[in-house]
Amino acid sequence: MRSAIRNGEIIREEEAVLPVTYREVQYSFSVYEALRITGGHIVHLDDHLRRLEESCRSIKLEHPFTDEMIGSSINALIRADGIVDATARILVVGGPAPLFFVTYSSLLSYPDSYYDEGVPVSLYYGERFLPRAKTSNLLMQYIALEEAKSRGSFEALLVNRKGQVLEGTRSNFYGIYGSTIYTASDDLVLSGITRISVIRAAEELGFSIIYTPPTDSNLYMFDSLFISSTSMGAMPVSSVNGNPMKRDRWDAIRDICRLEREWE
Amino acid sequence: MRSAIRNGEIIREEEAVLPVTYREVQYSFSVYEALRITGGHIVHLDDHLRRLEESCRSIKLEHPFTDEMIGSSINALIRADGIVDATARILVVGGPAPLFFVTYSSLLSYPDSYYDEGVPVSLYYGERFLPRAKTSNLLMQYIALEEAKSRGSFEALLVNRKGQVLEGTRSNFYGIYGSTIYTASDDLVLSGITRISVIRAAEELGFSIIYTPPTDSNLYMFDSLFISSTSMGAMPVSSVNGNPMKRDRWDAIRDICRLEREWE
Repeated sequence: MRSAIRNGEIIREEEAVLPVTYREVQYSFSVYEALRITGGHIVHLDDHLRRLEESCRSIKLEHPFTDEMIGSSINALIRADGIVDATARILVVGGPAPLFFVTYSSLLSYPDSYYDEGVPVSLYYGERFLPRAKTSNLLMQYIALEEAKSRGSFEALLVNRKGQVLEGTRSNFYGIYGSTIYTASDDLVLSGITRISVIRAAEELGFSIIYTPPTDSNLYMFDSLFISSTSMGAMPVSSVNGNPMKRDRWDAIRDICRLEREWE
Repeated sequence: MRSAIRNGEIIREEEAVLPVTYREVQYSFSVYEALRITGGHIVHLDDHLRRLEESCRSIKLEHPFTDEMIGSSINALIRADGIVDATARILVVGGPAPLFFVTYSSLLSYPDSYYDEGVPVSLYYGERFLPRAKTSNLLMQYIALEEAKSRGSFEALLVNRKGQVLEGTRSNFYGIYGSTIYTASDDLVLSGITRISVIRAAEELGFSIIYTPPTDSNLYMFDSLFISSTSMGAMPVSSVNGNPMKRDRWDAIRDICRLEREWE
C-alpha cells in the first residue's frame, strides 16, 4: 500500500483527497510539478521547486509550504516506501486553507522504438491561459491529447492564433535547421525543466538557439523536429497530422537526449 | 452534520472528496451546475440537467448518470437533511471511473442595497476556453474575480480580444438602450439558466433583444447595464472600472428581476 504526503505529513495514498466543497478545488486554483525519482534520488529538485514557486507567483497563490519542507517530505516519502524509481507529483491548492500533496506512481518511461522510429504528433489550435504557470487548468491539454490519441498520435502540439507551434500538452517542442534549433521564447511556454537541460546540451553540442517557434506552415522544412519532457527526455517526431517529417538530424536528437540524461 | 451525494448514494459531506491521483481530477476534466433550492423545491431542474448534458457533450465527457438518477438523488438529499432553502452544486468528473457529487450550502443571496444602488464591476481581458461548457477550468474566472474584489468590485466582466464585454465570471451581462437589450450571442457565452428567463421576461415587458454584446468603448452610452445569475437574479451595474454608468432604466431591471423570480 502506497503512502503519500499531505501538508508535510505521511498519509496513506487513499487519504490524498480534495474536498469538493472547497472553493479553490472547485475553481482549480492549484499548481503542480511532476518529478523523476531515480535510484532513490529526486532529479533536479531545486529546478522543480523554483518553477513551482513561479507558478504560484503567476496566479498569486500564497501558501506556507517552504522549499525545505517540500523537499524533506518527498525524501521522507522515499524512505517510508523504499522508493527507488518513480514519477512523483506535487500538488499545491491555494485559498484560505492551502493544501500540499505529494503522490507517486511507477516511473513513466517509453519503449526504445519511440526514440528509434520517432513518434507521430497532431496539431491542436488553442492557447493556454498564463502559459508560464503549471496549473491544474488542463482541460484544453486533456481534450487536445485525447483527440491526438484518437488519431493515433502520441502527443498534441498546441498552435496559437499566429500559427506558431509552441509546445506539446506535456512536452516542449523544437525544430532543427542546420546548426540551429528553433523553439518558442520562454514567455510563451512552460519553461520545462528538461527544456533547460536540452537547450544547454544542444549548445554544448555546437547548436545555436533561436527563440522563434516553428509554424504550422513551415514544419516540413526543418531537418528534424523533436519534443522533450521530464519523462521523455528528447524524442524525435516522425510525422505531423499524418505527414512524414524529415529525419536528417535524429543523430543530434539522440546526442542531446544522452547528454541531458547524464546531468541527472 | 451535512449529507451529500456520491454516485447516487447519500454520504457524509466530509466524504465528498476527489482522489488527487485520479488523472481526470489532475486535469480538471469535470463539469458542474449550481442550482437553487427554495421551499424544498429544486428551481429549474430540467434546465440545469439539460445544460449539464451540454457541458458534458462539449468536452466529450461520458458518464453513466441519468437525469432521473441525478434528480432523484438531489431530492433524496433534500429529504435526508430536511433542506428548505439552499444552493446545491452538482459535480461530474469524467474518465474511466466517473464520479458524480451533489453538495449544498446556505442559499446565496444578496443585500437589497445591491439591487437599489447597483454594484461596481471591473473589466478583465481574457477569453474562456469552450465558453458554452460549465467546466472546473475556472482559474481565469478565479483570478479575474480576485482582482476585481481587490479593486472593490462585486464582479469581473470578461472582455474578448475584440473588446466585446461578454459575461461576468459568474453572471451574464446586458446593456439596455432605449427599448432594446444588447447581450452576447449564445455561442459566445454560458447559456445561463437565469439568462433564459431574463430574456423571456424582457421580451414580455416589451424589450427586443439584439445579440450583440456591449464593448469596452461603448459601455457608458447604454441607458443601464446589468448582470444576472441563478443567485443574483438581475442586478444593476453602478460603475465599471470606477466610472459611474447611467441608471436611466433601473426600473426595467427591477421589473425583469421580479418577473424572472416569479417563474421559479
